[in-house]
Parts: sequence; structure tokens; C-alpha cells
Amino acid sequence: MADRRARRIAALAAALDQVHLDALLLTSLANVRYLTGFSGTSALVLVSGREVHLVTDSRYATQAAEEVGSVARISVQTQSLWTGLWQQLAAMPPVRVVGFESLHLLHRDFQRLLESGDRWQWRPTVELVETLRERKDADEVAAIRRAGAMATEALGRLLPQVRPGLTELQIAGLLEQALRDAGSEGFPFPTIVASGPRSALPHARSSARPVAAGELLLLDFGAQADGYCSDITRTVVVGRAGEREREVHDLVRTAQERATAGVRAGMRGRDADALARDYIEQRGYGDRFQHSLGHGLGLEVHEAPRLSRQADAALPRGAVVTIEPGVYEPGWGGVRIEDDVHLGADGPEVLTHFTRELLELA
Amino acid sequence: MADRRARRIAALAAALDQVHLDALLLTSLANVRYLTGFSGTSALVLVSGREVHLVTDSRYATQAAEEVGSVARISVQTQSLWTGLWQQLAAMPPVRVVGFESLHLLHRDFQRLLESGDRWQWRPTVELVETLRERKDADEVAAIRRAGAMATEALGRLLPQVRPGLTELQIAGLLEQALRDAGSEGFPFPTIVASGPRSALPHARSSARPVAAGELLLLDFGAQADGYCSDITRTVVVGRAGEREREVHDLVRTAQERATAGVRAGMRGRDADALARDYIEQRGYGDRFQHSLGHGLGLEVHEAPRLSRQADAALPRGAVVTIEPGVYEPGWGGVRIEDDVHLGADGPEVLTHFTRELLELA
Repeated sequence: MADRRARRIAALAAALDQVHLDALLLTSLANVRYLTGFSGTSALVLVSGREVHLVTDSRYATQAAEEVGSVARISVQTQSLWTGLWQQLAAMPPVRVVGFESLHLLHRDFQRLLESGDRWQWRPTVELVETLRERKDADEVAAIRRAGAMATEALGRLLPQVRPGLTELQIAGLLEQALRDAGSEGFPFPTIVASGPRSALPHARSSARPVAAGELLLLDFGAQADGYCSDITRTVVVGRAGEREREVHDLVRTAQERATAGVRAGMRGRDADALARDYIEQRGYGDRFQHSLGHGLGLEVHEAPRLSRQADAALPRGAVVTIEPGVYEPGWGGVRIEDDVHLGADGPEVLTHFTRELLELA
Repeated sequence: MADRRARRIAALAAALDQVHLDALLLTSLANVRYLTGFSGTSALVLVSGREVHLVTDSRYATQAAEEVGSVARISVQTQSLWTGLWQQLAAMPPVRVVGFESLHLLHRDFQRLLESGDRWQWRPTVELVETLRERKDADEVAAIRRAGAMATEALGRLLPQVRPGLTELQIAGLLEQALRDAGSEGFPFPTIVASGPRSALPHARSSARPVAAGELLLLDFGAQADGYCSDITRTVVVGRAGEREREVHDLVRTAQERATAGVRAGMRGRDADALARDYIEQRGYGDRFQHSLGHGLGLEVHEAPRLSRQADAALPRGAVVTIEPGVYEPGWGGVRIEDDVHLGADGPEVLTHFTRELLELA
């Protein structure tokens, strides 16, 4: 594990060299975790070609030492992390041009950089570490696979317990308890349990609405293992499905299966998106699928790459992405089916194994 | 409710006038929710003395219309929210000097402001809305009280189910399920279930560690109602307590009761902190209580004001704060007791009612 982190740090150092930076200040906690292993919520990290420094506060003294080991020098601050940062930076003499993460630095903290004097030149950078994170190594894929197995195990345990009259919140509670029993460290995003017409809202949260017999029930949730996330969606019927539920589910299922089978490293994000979208459009439902097909998955539940109509970049080999088409009819309901897929050298490998058949919870 | 929002917007407009700003750009979602009622995760809001504009994306078109009503004009963007922002801003002719939230604007977005041309002058602001949010109105206190009742109801349901051999994660799952059953919309922060020596880590998360008989079990968690958070901690013993557990629990309990009874609006944050800290120091445990006494609570689980050794500001009337002293012995364990307290005109009112006796789960 320390080995993998050393390799990541070396790759970042090479990237810094290419853009003529002496060092990089990291303020994204996901990037900090990726490079150093530190999972706390308070850290600043400096990476140069020669060394890595991590500054944290006294609550995390023990944890930082355990998690980071010899990968970085640790300094523990009792007041502001920035005090420690200036000390560490001053102790790195050849460092003059320092990058910072434009997508992860607040204006207030940017002002601190400007006020630090003329000893350092500060340069905004975008996604230097995120680009490295796109290509998952074997340990990372294994962690996402474990998180996927926790999610499918929990879903299997939940479904026999669902019955008309339970509220969306109660169903979320049963699902979350099953996720914890399966070993999930946490919830990568708020659990979506959306029933009946609420399933037509792509960003519904769970509500106090009771589920009625014959209604659609959309479940979108995830688990976490060693910091890595899974993200899965299934849509079922509470009772017997009608004609329309069958038809829409069948359409979404076929689109989702085409995309999970057809997606490849090297393909542009927009072409991956089209694998599902073209089919849905041919069937006349194009205007009912308004969101993008999917997103990268890793230490964060939404990360690079993107699979959307606007995504021109090629999907990197080793990425793990979600494939989640949906069809939504306002006032009636929606169907979404989502799996996590690793884009390996031998083609796509699904990491979340759960039937895509339309389940009728009778 | 629309009425309260109109009053808040008027108060903010008066504050803008005082600091000579024509308008304020809001990028904090909690501040957006406070002023407009919008609870989605994608919004930019402009407030001037005359009008309020909210820009969101197409996923939230229906929800924004329902939640915001007539409080703000809504514009829905299919691509970038910033496109909509420039349009709205150009349609507000007398606006020239515009504030932004320095604590809630990323450097990348700050660059967008700089690149917007010389039509507007941009000024950093700090906590203009947060200051308004410190003083809770009756509806807000009622929501926190409901969230507090959900938390205590869930705790009461959990404790009879705890037994040796369950892991911290399993206990978290039982607790979270009970929170959902009680109606909690979500989890304001990751549930902390820390057993045995892990209870000595003030920022422990829940782990796969099984709880053993005779061990301390620290539970720190919250519920959410209408967006408002509760935050409560109890420390129990799984089985019979020993002498040391009793002694430390008694000490923390007395400190916590002194502080909840003695805290008052108008008192400086440091003096509130001292209500508990002085007692713990007198008893010789001062170096075992290293974090601050508490924090404000509302739409966010950590907000102004602060109750700590460094907090010079007076606690405002109407604030809701946590009171959570703890004593931690590395390698042995820790005890923390936490309640939520409203600082009303008639003195402190505890919003989380659950016994502070040392419970032995036999």
C-alpha cells in the first residue's frame, strides 16, 4: 500500500515537473487521501519532487501517524493549519513556484496565499491529481468491488421486507441498516428512495411518503469500503407491474445492458453516452432521458471521467464508471438502472452484480 | 414561512446597505436555503435591495418553483449556472458593486468574477448571512426541537438492542434505522459509534470492531427535520461499569450540567466554555479535555457561534448551541455528553431530553 502511494507521488512529481512547478499545495481531502492515505477531515499537504509534508490538527495526531506512516512528514498544529504550512514551505528551500488546486481552494484561503509575501509564486492548477485518480489500480478496483458487493447484499436483504404502507424514509432505514451489516463504512451520498410519481424526480431524496401497492420504487444508493464508493440503482414494483411499467423498464434495461456491454476504454465520453441514448431516442423516449449516462467513481462518488453528450475526452483505461440511463414521465414515475463498470484491458467488467429483471414485490 | 424569508431578505438588504454593496452573490447552499427555501444542491443566488434571483439547473426546475414560490425569480439553466448569473446580473441595472462570499467561493469561480469584465466591482464578504442565521426564530427552534426528539427517540430504541459482539458498524446501522423510523430526513454528519479504547478518539468514525462486555460505548449522532440538525452524544457501558468509568462519567456529567444550566445569551463564547472546563480542570482532568465546548447548530451542524477558549464574541440571543464536554484517556477510552441548548430570553432551554445517568446495558 505504501508502495502504491510512493508510485502515485512519483507520478505527481513528474506531472509537476512537466508544468514547471516546484511544488503543489493540496487542499482536496480526496486527493490527500489518494496520495498519503490520511482519511481525516483536516489537512494541508505539500508535494515537491523531493518530499511530502502533511499538516493536520491535534485531533488527528494519532490517526495521521498510523495512516500516513513514512509516506509524508507530519506536522500537528494546535491552531491554524496555515501556520504549519508556512513553516513547512520555508523549510523546503529550492521551492519557489508553487501550484494550488483552483477547484479546491476557497477565496479566503487564496487570499492567504497572496498575503504570504513574494517568497513564493502561486499558480492555479486544475485536476493534476484527479487525472491520476482516473486510472484505478488493482487495489482500488478491489475496494470498489467490495463496496459493490455490500450494496447488492443489502439490496437483496431489503427487498423481501418492502411492503405497501412503509414510508420512503422507513425503507431507506432498512436499506441503510443492511448496508451497515454488510460492513459499509458510510453512505457515499444521501440514499434515494423514491416511490410512485416521486420516482420521476432524478434528484429526489427520501420522504415521508408511504409506498402504495402497484407503484414504482426507485432505489439509488451506495456503500463504502476503504474509502472507495459504490453507486447502484434498481427500480422495482411494489406488487404487480402494469403494462406501462413493464414497457419502460424493458426499454431502460435494454439501453443499460447495451451500454455496459459496449463501453470501452479509449471511447469518448459522448460516444459511451450514445450507446444508451441512441436506443432510447429510437424508441421515442429521447426527451425523457435528460441527465448524462454516468460518471467516474472512486474515493469520491462523482469524479472524472464524464459520460455525457458534452464529454469529448476519451475514457481512460482503468477507469471505473457508472452506467445509469433513466426514463422519467412527470406525474407518473421513472425507471433508472445503474451499475458500476471497470474499463479494463479486456473490456468492461461489471462490479455490481444484481438482477436487472423487473422485480415485482408481491 | 414566505413571510419569514421576506424578513430575512430585508435584514440582509439592510446589512448590504451598511457595507455599501448594491448586491450580494450567494454560493453557500445553506445560506441559499435560509433566504429562499431552496433545498437543492445546485444554485447561485443574487440579492439586491430590490430583488432576489435564483439560478439553478434543469434537474431542479419543479422543486425550485415549489420551494421558492414568490420569494425569488427563478431561472433554470441547462448548461452552466454562471451563464444564467450573468444574464440576471445584467438585468439589474443599478447594480455595480457586488459582494461575494469569500468563505464559500472556489478560486476557479472567483476567476470567473474577475473575467466578467469591468461592469461590476467585486468585493469579498465574510459571514453576512451566517450572522443573521445565528439568531433562530420560533420555527427554526421548533425544527431543531423536532430533530432532537427524533434523535432521543432513536437512542431509546437502540439501547435495548445493544449487546456484546455487535460491531460498531452494526450498532450504527440499528441507530440509523431508528432515526429513519423516527422521521429523520438524513444524517447531518457520519454517525460515531466508538467502543472501548476507540472512545478516546474525539473524531472516531464507526468501525468493524466488535463491542465487548464492560466496555464504554460512545454514540454521537444527529437527525434532520426541515433541513435543521440535532447533535447529541451519550456514553454508556455495555454491561457493568467499573469504578473508573463511573468516576469519569460523573465528572463529565457534572461539567455538562453546569454548562447547560449556566450558559446565557450575552456571555462570551470563552466564558461559556469555562463553565465546564474550569470544573474539569479543578478535578485534575484539564489536559484530557482538548476540544472546545460546543458550536452553533441550525441548517448546518457546525455554524456560528463558537464556544471555545478562543471565542471572544458574545453568544447571541436566540442561538442554538451544543454543550459537549468530554474526557479522553488514550488507550482506555473516553466519555462525552452532549445536548442542544436554545439561548432564549428566559435563559437556556435544553432541546434534547435524554437521561444523563450512566446507563449500564446489562
